[in-house]
Amino acid sequence: MKQTLRDLAEQLGCRLLGDGSVIVTTVSSLQSATTGSLVFVDDAQYLDTALGSPAAAVIAGDFALKTTSKPILISSQPRLTLARAAKLLRDPDRNRAIHPSAIVPASAAIGKNVAIGPGAILGERVEVGDETTIGSGSAIGDTVAIGSHCRIDANVTIYPGTTLGDRVVVQAGAVLGSEGFGYVRDSKTGRYEQSPQIGRLVLEDDVEIGANSTIDRGALDETRIRRGTKIDNLVHIGHNCQIGENVVIAAQTGLSGSVTIEDDVIMGGQVGIGDHARVESGAMIGGQGGILPKKILRGKGIVFWGTPARPVREYLKELAFVSRSAKKER
Amino acid sequence: MKQTLRDLAEQLGCRLLGDGSVIVTTVSSLQSATTGSLVFVDDAQYLDTALGSPAAAVIAGDFALKTTSKPILISSQPRLTLARAAKLLRDPDRNRAIHPSAIVPASAAIGKNVAIGPGAILGERVEVGDETTIGSGSAIGDTVAIGSHCRIDANVTIYPGTTLGDRVVVQAGAVLGSEGFGYVRDSKTGRYEQSPQIGRLVLEDDVEIGANSTIDRGALDETRIRRGTKIDNLVHIGHNCQIGENVVIAAQTGLSGSVTIEDDVIMGGQVGIGDHARVESGAMIGGQGGILPKKILRGKGIVFWGTPARPVREYLKELAFVSRSAKKER
Amino acid sequence: MKQTLRDLAEQLGCRLLGDGSVIVTTVSSLQSATTGSLVFVDDAQYLDTALGSPAAAVIAGDFALKTTSKPILISSQPRLTLARAAKLLRDPDRNRAIHPSAIVPASAAIGKNVAIGPGAILGERVEVGDETTIGSGSAIGDTVAIGSHCRIDANVTIYPGTTLGDRVVVQAGAVLGSEGFGYVRDSKTGRYEQSPQIGRLVLEDDVEIGANSTIDRGALDETRIRRGTKIDNLVHIGHNCQIGENVVIAAQTGLSGSVTIEDDVIMGGQVGIGDHARVESGAMIGGQGGILPKKILRGKGIVFWGTPARPVREYLKELAFVSRSAKKER
Repeated sequence: MKQTLRDLAEQLGCRLLGDGSVIVTTVSSLQSATTGSLVFVDDAQYLDTALGSPAAAVIAGDFALKTTSKPILISSQPRLTLARAAKLLRDPDRNRAIHPSAIVPASAAIGKNVAIGPGAILGERVEVGDETTIGSGSAIGDTVAIGSHCRIDANVTIYPGTTLGDRVVVQAGAVLGSEGFGYVRDSKTGRYEQSPQIGRLVLEDDVEIGANSTIDRGALDETRIRRGTKIDNLVHIGHNCQIGENVVIAAQTGLSGSVTIEDDVIMGGQVGIGDHARVESGAMIGGQGGILPKKILRGKGIVFWGTPARPVREYLKELAFVSRSAKKER
Repeated sequence: MKQTLRDLAEQLGCRLLGDGSVIVTTVSSLQSATTGSLVFVDDAQYLDTALGSPAAAVIAGDFALKTTSKPILISSQPRLTLARAAKLLRDPDRNRAIHPSAIVPASAAIGKNVAIGPGAILGERVEVGDETTIGSGSAIGDTVAIGSHCRIDANVTIYPGTTLGDRVVVQAGAVLGSEGFGYVRDSKTGRYEQSPQIGRLVLEDDVEIGANSTIDRGALDETRIRRGTKIDNLVHIGHNCQIGENVVIAAQTGLSGSVTIEDDVIMGGQVGIGDHARVESGAMIGGQGGILPKKILRGKGIVFWGTPARPVREYLKELAFVSRSAKKER
Repeated sequence: MKQTLRDLAEQLGCRLLGDGSVIVTTVSSLQSATTGSLVFVDDAQYLDTALGSPAAAVIAGDFALKTTSKPILISSQPRLTLARAAKLLRDPDRNRAIHPSAIVPASAAIGKNVAIGPGAILGERVEVGDETTIGSGSAIGDTVAIGSHCRIDANVTIYPGTTLGDRVVVQAGAVLGSEGFGYVRDSKTGRYEQSPQIGRLVLEDDVEIGANSTIDRGALDETRIRRGTKIDNLVHIGHNCQIGENVVIAAQTGLSGSVTIEDDVIMGGQVGIGDHARVESGAMIGGQGGILPKKILRGKGIVFWGTPARPVREYLKELAFVSRSAKKER
């Protein structure tokens, strides 16, 4: 979508230096910039590269407050401004319609300007808010409530009773509200029988879920993911988990049942967390770290690593000790 | 589904203390119990909490053999009794029908009272037993045989030739019978060519598979998962694996090809098992544990942990030694 | 598909010893061989077992250059010859057609002899090469280009703009071209906003992708997987990764963003690689190994293991030192 730099500057709340009439069509990296590109630099040392590229304009910090060969948007957070510019330059959806092959029962409550892709299936009494899109082949169970401005991509499954807030993004193949992994062993026969998995799943506003991730509903009560939390691909969240606001969980991490993750926690990839553990606000866990069941991990701003996870400084000292000692032995 | 407590007690084979005419509509946790709830306590210390809740009735051990303010169902396994009560209280499926948008070839053999969801696709000569449900958008390949009382959820893929016993549950997005990861490298060109992956996959009765898990068929022979084994979300089972009865495998665990898991093994999440390894009956493996290829893990009732997995007592001593020594160094 | 052994020998370029008129219908393992089976032995010690089986014929190395009770195909790479024989014996696809329930816009460019399964959905301007098959329920986004002789299985999602070469295989449930996990935190509000994820994904010829794997497109530029690379089930590849030729990646391995994997690397299962790391040509990484962000792993033919990954000899010495020392303590 074409915009003049002046229009973009206004929407982004940025100071504009130079020619505001240049036309911008996309954001780009420095390497792939072309004549319609908007690029960014958050470090003065790359400014010359940006100015030497074919890009139409540059987003930069106030280190760029000078006359240059290209127009500049000054931002205190250049990377964030690029992210917002990208949204403003995004093409509007081609197809804001309900495809005739989608199945939408009369009991569904569908908002304005909703797009539902071919072969998508809605159950009874589903609610879909304004401007939400549902991708091809997705299966939305009975009584699911989806807010406005959400994006559900293709082949997603949402189990009955799940609730999604506004601006929630669910990428392809993700499964929301599946039954948790809870069994009772009959002490007489040795056979496992499923514990009731009749709770529900709530994703609050601005939550984003990666491709093929799976999030179980509560066993008797609820699994809840709070506002603004971002979850990568192939992540598993067990039943009854309570995840705070603005949590970041990288790919292939797994949470057992009844785990509590407080606000602002950051987890690397392939982290594993045992049932009933609690990670307190602001902690960070390095990739492949492991937290034991019932463990409480406390430490705003501390990075934990290893299995069982310990403060990274401690863990690195242990690794160094072992490496040195093993070498000394022969 | 409403039932009187007396009716439930009879079906569950429990002794009833107090008023059998109370109406129960659902099982609940102690925290969320409402007036129609049936709750359970398996520890005498929680009995008063249960009696103080709004629940209609309580399932409890024989520590509750006394007059109380609420009717009680006495059970030697209260948690198991709750699980069974939940099944008895479950609403019957709304829609026992084959949706007109499902594709069911004339060559398919469909049992009585089968439900097939919108957009589900059956291949040629598929067999589906009585009372089985197949979810929307699932793709069931040619000659797949599915037993009775199975539940295949939405967007599941079952490759041709796979066999499922009775009461098998497959949650959304799971893939059964995919081609295994076997390649031969041509020593002249350095290129990989696929080894034949033409075997099959058998899931026996009462097997349950979590969302987005993947189970490969045998290369030349079969992959088999025996009666009553329960598998969580995002688990990978490679070609030719032989998994015993009543095995429990938590989320994101992965088995390479030709692994043998004997009966009653319990595996935590994110465990990794190398090809041709064997885990003998009754062993337990802690989360993130790793078993080397061809390793035999022996030890009924022993918990193994770490990579390579060793008895947990041994592993904890090692962790303690390293931690202590690293601290001593400075 | 029936063939005479003589016809097979010719197509495989193998020397034939014995009766070329025997009919072969399938490849088999030694254990499950029946009268139409072709089996292989790559070790002289199993030749007698093969000759004693009901198989019709045996593929063997030149250790079998003698008169035997069964006809023999002599190959310098018996396992590779079996793999190729399996392809020659494979039944042709039943249904080379576009199913009427598939959605194929007029703007799509569909090659000759293409099969598109029931309920598959193609976007605008999709290109599909000759002899390619697309499975039921797959969702192929706008402007996706798929080469010839590809096999896209059921319930696959391919995001808009993705390019696949020839002979690419994508197993069920895989997601190609999803948005990467990149967010910018607004330092004023503490909220995360998505970085632009508007690049693309290219899979070159002969790439194979396992079931339920997820591969993100580039953020601004591209994610690329080069010729002949094979990827197992439930693998995650982050945005901007560059993966070389003939790389092998086992199940549940995860690559963060902007990782470079050079040619001929082999990775076990559940390996985790931090962002911007580089694994140089010919290195091998054992299962569950972990590579730190920005790390460069160098070593053609060296096996690395552990987290952080180190040469396996070194790592095993460390494990032995710790085990010995912990035992000594008591």
